[in-house]
Amino acid sequence: MRMVDLIIKKREGNELTDEEIRFWIKGYTEGSIPDYQSSAMAMAILFKGMTKREIATLTDAMEYSGEVIDLSDIAGVKVDKHSTGGVGDKTSIVLGPMVAACGAKLAKMSGRGLGHTGGTLDKLESIPGMNIAKTKEEMVKQVNDIGIAIIGQTKSLVPADKKLYALRDVTGTVESIPLIAASVMSKKLASGTDAILLDVTVGEGAFMKNMESARELARTMVNIGKSLNRNTVAVLSDMSEPLGRAVGNSLEIKEAIASLQGNGPEDLMELCFTSGSIMLVQANICKTREEAKAKLKSVIEDGSAFEKLCQMVEAQGGDVDCIRHPEKFEVSSKAIEIRAEKTGYIKKCDALEIGVAAMKLGAGRETLEDKIDMSAGVYLTNKVGAYVEKGDLLCTAYTNKDNYEEAINQIKGAYEIVDEVVYAQPVIREIVD
Amino acid sequence: MRMVDLIIKKREGNELTDEEIRFWIKGYTEGSIPDYQSSAMAMAILFKGMTKREIATLTDAMEYSGEVIDLSDIAGVKVDKHSTGGVGDKTSIVLGPMVAACGAKLAKMSGRGLGHTGGTLDKLESIPGMNIAKTKEEMVKQVNDIGIAIIGQTKSLVPADKKLYALRDVTGTVESIPLIAASVMSKKLASGTDAILLDVTVGEGAFMKNMESARELARTMVNIGKSLNRNTVAVLSDMSEPLGRAVGNSLEIKEAIASLQGNGPEDLMELCFTSGSIMLVQANICKTREEAKAKLKSVIEDGSAFEKLCQMVEAQGGDVDCIRHPEKFEVSSKAIEIRAEKTGYIKKCDALEIGVAAMKLGAGRETLEDKIDMSAGVYLTNKVGAYVEKGDLLCTAYTNKDNYEEAINQIKGAYEIVDEVVYAQPVIREIVD
Repeated sequence: MRMVDLIIKKREGNELTDEEIRFWIKGYTEGSIPDYQSSAMAMAILFKGMTKREIATLTDAMEYSGEVIDLSDIAGVKVDKHSTGGVGDKTSIVLGPMVAACGAKLAKMSGRGLGHTGGTLDKLESIPGMNIAKTKEEMVKQVNDIGIAIIGQTKSLVPADKKLYALRDVTGTVESIPLIAASVMSKKLASGTDAILLDVTVGEGAFMKNMESARELARTMVNIGKSLNRNTVAVLSDMSEPLGRAVGNSLEIKEAIASLQGNGPEDLMELCFTSGSIMLVQANICKTREEAKAKLKSVIEDGSAFEKLCQMVEAQGGDVDCIRHPEKFEVSSKAIEIRAEKTGYIKKCDALEIGVAAMKLGAGRETLEDKIDMSAGVYLTNKVGAYVEKGDLLCTAYTNKDNYEEAINQIKGAYEIVDEVVYAQPVIREIVD
Repeated sequence: MRMVDLIIKKREGNELTDEEIRFWIKGYTEGSIPDYQSSAMAMAILFKGMTKREIATLTDAMEYSGEVIDLSDIAGVKVDKHSTGGVGDKTSIVLGPMVAACGAKLAKMSGRGLGHTGGTLDKLESIPGMNIAKTKEEMVKQVNDIGIAIIGQTKSLVPADKKLYALRDVTGTVESIPLIAASVMSKKLASGTDAILLDVTVGEGAFMKNMESARELARTMVNIGKSLNRNTVAVLSDMSEPLGRAVGNSLEIKEAIASLQGNGPEDLMELCFTSGSIMLVQANICKTREEAKAKLKSVIEDGSAFEKLCQMVEAQGGDVDCIRHPEKFEVSSKAIEIRAEKTGYIKKCDALEIGVAAMKLGAGRETLEDKIDMSAGVYLTNKVGAYVEKGDLLCTAYTNKDNYEEAINQIKGAYEIVDEVVYAQPVIREIVD
């Protein structure tokens, strides 16, 4: 079998066999198939697509390209969630403790942020002492003890995806739904979970800019999960504006704490209740999503979800005192208030612009080598749909940098105020199952 | 400027600027842009095409990626020809001496054969002593002395094309008309010629399998030539069956000799008269193609074209005695006769199958490292349109190998004999100028 023949086959729009897909992924992982052939193949896939069966095989081949985590030592149904990324997306840190407080088992491996989107690991690391570099065995023990662990992906997980993703990033082949789907799902499957809740974000701040492509990605991933016997459901959530009000690592942790204490922003809570209710049904803890939603509300009200976060932080070496007294988090040296330049309704609070501005303020990385400023970011006092008068506070930018003008201008440009009444987009756009 | 952005731009079907194309070719030649980005770009070009302007700029950028030959020391209009390759294609060796005998100046750099197609250099090297590794200065002197030289491409010519062609060959990106056209034309332009006659072969044994794609390639190359101020004309010639009767290096030289002595096969001579007449008009030697054709016939009849071949062989150190007495060429140890298995008309004599079989008999290379057997090949006694009776000789296979069964079966399979009368395709299909 020659790789060039497989590239030509795909280029001509033909379906690759299981054997051919496995030949590619195995050869590429081992190094016998060079980058230049994989990038040509990725481009051919981008143009010609893949069938359901091809995508399932590709996912499976990538999943088994490295270590596959065995979670069988954890009793019960293991659930996991994955978001395709967004701005202000602290869902895992709120939703995780919520479902764990309801009895679900969540052994989650998360990633770091890059570009305008943040990463759960970075956010957790803004908690002093928090250790996300736990071993697989420590993770299993922690989930058995308290029901939840959120740690970094081990290095030996899905090496094929690591290599292919880095290649796609520099060869203009990121935007292929089969390749995105296989990348996400291979990681989730290799993490050993039984059930998967996918949060496919859609809008300016997300990877999928419109409902059509978001729906296609969601449908593709759900199909992969089903064909590989995992209960998989996708929620399509709005990412035209940031989720919640806080954007930036410790700012988001503080918002997560408030949310678990019953003071969360409406959109974030709606997303957590909907996603969480699906997960509790997937975990066989509740029979219906309605029942599950009531249970999730009760663990917020009785404080047990908040206590679950404290347990997780403690189990992973973090400073629980900070969680109980969030005013102890370090605050940026500069807080720049941005005010409405006219009276009216906020029509736009562009997630991409806010995300990029937060990165420039120090909250994110442009390259994987950049260091993050945990206290930097943006807090949105007013979002889409709000009525503001000229001079009202729109948001506050936090930074330790001296050179912040560009970011501030970008934030100003992210807002649009109009005379007519505006209604915010509901956060849950669709459920695909 | 980032290469990944250029790949995405092309992938989205947008037109690259001159600056962007030059950035790519310069970076790729120098090594600052890696293979994996160039292969992704090549695949994007294959799918999305290029505009006339993009192709002209790409050709120009490749032409100037290395040395550009200056032929200004040769008086008069310098003409060159290029064939997109075929089976039994010894045109340059016949046509070259013909046009030179008419007074044209031909300083030609040729290539080697690969796969089922032969290369002019290999064929010339079957003449004992023949030296094709001449310097540029020696070539200029020889053309000034006798009007013709056919030598190997210098190493410093179009390094961008050398690198990109090798990459395309292993990444399924050969079949892109803009890339093929830029590859051919950059080499021709860098060789310093004033006028170019392109022979675009079409059919089973050619790169272009149908008239539509052959016409598009011809049109694209003629446009490049014109936009870069070179008189460029393309002949579309049939390659459904081999050209002439001989396939294999010294077999073809012997056929070229016979052709220059007035005993050439009809299809080969027709191609040489048509192509040559265009070249003589391009060279301002004749006013019309009709006048040129008559002149070409006269140099065959008076023996001056044959003498021109002898002069070239002598100037390049070859054994002229062999040319005057072609029976002195070494003959293969085995001659296997293949005979008609039924009576009827030959409908097919598949150029690709014959070409691959000849390669297996020793006449060609599967990889660039393979050594060629100069005497191996196939001589076609009967071709498409001929009436044969069962048992009549179709062709003879020549080889020094013991293991030739596979090749013989392939040759048998290349022939198809039917009951109905069959007319051979005319060799000249179309002229694009």
